[in-house]
Amino acid sequence: MSFSNIMDSNSYSADHPVDPATESLIAARDRILGPAYRLFYQRPVHLVRGEGTRLYDADGACYLDAYNNVASVGHCHPHVVEAVTRQLSTLNTHTRYLHGGIVNYSERLLDTMPEQIDQVMYACTGSEVNDLALRVAEMYTGAKGVIVTTDAYHGNTAAVTAISPSIGGATVLGEHVRTVPPPDSYRVPAAELAETFTADVVAAITDLKDRGAGFSALIVDTIFSSDGIYPDPSVLAPAVEAVHRAGGVFIADEVQPGFGRTGEAMWGFLRHGVVPDLVTMGKPMGNGMPIAAMAARSEVLDVFAREVPYFNTFGGNPVTIAAAAAVLDVIEEEKLMRNAADVGSQLRTELARLGADHPRIGDVRGTGLYVGVEVIDETGAPDRAGARELVNAMRERRVLISVCGRDGNVLKIRPPLVFSSTDVDWFCTEFAGALASPF
Amino acid sequence: MSFSNIMDSNSYSADHPVDPATESLIAARDRILGPAYRLFYQRPVHLVRGEGTRLYDADGACYLDAYNNVASVGHCHPHVVEAVTRQLSTLNTHTRYLHGGIVNYSERLLDTMPEQIDQVMYACTGSEVNDLALRVAEMYTGAKGVIVTTDAYHGNTAAVTAISPSIGGATVLGEHVRTVPPPDSYRVPAAELAETFTADVVAAITDLKDRGAGFSALIVDTIFSSDGIYPDPSVLAPAVEAVHRAGGVFIADEVQPGFGRTGEAMWGFLRHGVVPDLVTMGKPMGNGMPIAAMAARSEVLDVFAREVPYFNTFGGNPVTIAAAAAVLDVIEEEKLMRNAADVGSQLRTELARLGADHPRIGDVRGTGLYVGVEVIDETGAPDRAGARELVNAMRERRVLISVCGRDGNVLKIRPPLVFSSTDVDWFCTEFAGALASPF
Repeated sequence: MSFSNIMDSNSYSADHPVDPATESLIAARDRILGPAYRLFYQRPVHLVRGEGTRLYDADGACYLDAYNNVASVGHCHPHVVEAVTRQLSTLNTHTRYLHGGIVNYSERLLDTMPEQIDQVMYACTGSEVNDLALRVAEMYTGAKGVIVTTDAYHGNTAAVTAISPSIGGATVLGEHVRTVPPPDSYRVPAAELAETFTADVVAAITDLKDRGAGFSALIVDTIFSSDGIYPDPSVLAPAVEAVHRAGGVFIADEVQPGFGRTGEAMWGFLRHGVVPDLVTMGKPMGNGMPIAAMAARSEVLDVFAREVPYFNTFGGNPVTIAAAAAVLDVIEEEKLMRNAADVGSQLRTELARLGADHPRIGDVRGTGLYVGVEVIDETGAPDRAGARELVNAMRERRVLISVCGRDGNVLKIRPPLVFSSTDVDWFCTEFAGALASPF
Repeated sequence: MSFSNIMDSNSYSADHPVDPATESLIAARDRILGPAYRLFYQRPVHLVRGEGTRLYDADGACYLDAYNNVASVGHCHPHVVEAVTRQLSTLNTHTRYLHGGIVNYSERLLDTMPEQIDQVMYACTGSEVNDLALRVAEMYTGAKGVIVTTDAYHGNTAAVTAISPSIGGATVLGEHVRTVPPPDSYRVPAAELAETFTADVVAAITDLKDRGAGFSALIVDTIFSSDGIYPDPSVLAPAVEAVHRAGGVFIADEVQPGFGRTGEAMWGFLRHGVVPDLVTMGKPMGNGMPIAAMAARSEVLDVFAREVPYFNTFGGNPVTIAAAAAVLDVIEEEKLMRNAADVGSQLRTELARLGADHPRIGDVRGTGLYVGVEVIDETGAPDRAGARELVNAMRERRVLISVCGRDGNVLKIRPPLVFSSTDVDWFCTEFAGALASPF
């Protein structure tokens, strides 16, 4: 997610009055958690209960969740709750003792990937596994240089903040980092997308090699979500080929598109027909339980794994593994990838129909249940203020979404995968209402 | 924990035969998780159930857990299980929505600290909060130089690996890092401990300032656990005074001693009579649920929190906060700090009695339920091999411990805080048996 945009577009401001109880909770929060903690929406939401795609606030009002990908199989899914409770009542230790759960889950997880990707390591957050992946790539290549997209977000540790230009604020990109524009399918002709992206990657590789950092890795979120959601599946294959030709490592950051969200495949990289060297995953993996993983080609992982001691206390513990296994169960049993494809398609069709009548909607794009809506002004330029107003108008209508993209003008619609046709109708009714008001 | 020592002393090796089922689980694990994953003990333990201080293996054999500080209030404590289950069935989102749980818990947590420490931020692991603390310190001081102890361990991200000399292997300390010897109460006279430690810190500050990195922070585990467990409480006050005089930040890493383990105080730094600028905590915080925090003096945190966007998806989510609140409940209701003091004292007395008759036991030290036993050879030198043999002998007697310290010769005895007098008797009976065999 694009933090500078979230902070700019969505933060609570005292101009929008809230009830006294909410005001007092906000004040206590500000005092105790400090200024790093931001709230969504001009009028923040105080949630107390969730179920499926529904969230309920302290007054009992019901919201449609069209934003949260962490609760990927639905808020408070009973199968996940039951699996966590059972394991938490039985045993929760760490990976220096033998446990069958981690081995069984790892086999299931690797079965969803190309056979070249044959090992997996666990941590608690996407940040931790991206931090780890950079170290693995550096050890394998002997080089430090990393290529990311212009508005990439890969996490919050020191090392991954340095490769996350979208964070903004007082952060600075590392000297070993080069950025390439994302494959902007709205502004670049489809026929040129792959060629342009690849040429930019090749130029960045050359620059890194020329200036001493050397080339270690290209890392991309395979749905380019913080950049603005760009689903064209033709882009990565030639770029990854160039990366491998240059001796580099390709890291697929699947924290956003992974676990079936794109509807077309379990992993975003599969849509592009590439085999990454390292695959990182997190957010939806345990439906809110903190678990993340890095899957790897063993020959790329090997030198790091042998020579650098690494242990993650909570990573891969029996309880978070139980959550992750239950999430896989639900994705399979409830056919959520298929649902993401069908319902996502229905949602984009409806949104495109609404947008066709509206001069401020420039584009509706996405795949599965990752949908972006480009908000533009009268001249066709990105309209940050308009997107902000729409997000807040939708919140007043009790539908939760956010924004992404370099200009903060792309509506980010990314609901739990159990989103239904009824939810699409609900969403589009409110969206039509929001569009009908001046913004 | 000292990884190089763990790997050296405890790893499974094929020389020690296990049953076919265990062998096949180990083989699958090695294949799928890769060489970074190590197992405790020459004959690894396959655990399937835990309760209080007891762990049970796949054959139903019962082990006494004298090692695991994560399950601090006891394995599978029903109050924690119940709290997690309830919240997981109700709501689990993130900190960009309002939620009362995080505010209430934060108030309780800060109430256990000096009033100058008035804000708190959440993440999932000790590594993440130490990584964050380094960034906060660097932003506040405008300098990069960090001082750690010779065998410090502060976590596994790139940034904290660079300040964790105990990890060993192919890792390298950062150029901005200086080490100082820990306050070795076994080899340095008590009267000289504080003076020596402070002089070393002052020299390191001078060196960092002279060589361009500048001085940002002194970070120590306030029980010096990976260094070998050094409980003398006189050491930190003059060193922290020197740190503040030099414009630096003192970070108390409470991942090991925090939450009452030392028996004398909720936090290790309180035993030393110092007020840190930043306090990091993790492992026992959620009894195995991945939650960690950084408490801070708001004036030190302020510039970072205002200028650097930071968001941790799972950090401080309602479920992990519920676990942490339940842990505080149990520490209070079951008077576990008092138990750690009483039972820990009993354990050290018994171990000292056993050690007095044995020439290979050089020292028994610690506070509360953090106990170190120094194993030496006939010349009085650290005996790594002897410690390894004792750890494995104890495992064969179904009592779980490990080692720490630069030389891997200090037995690390760090049980759940619900350890009882009966457990002490059990432990000491087996320890006497292990000591009686040649090692």
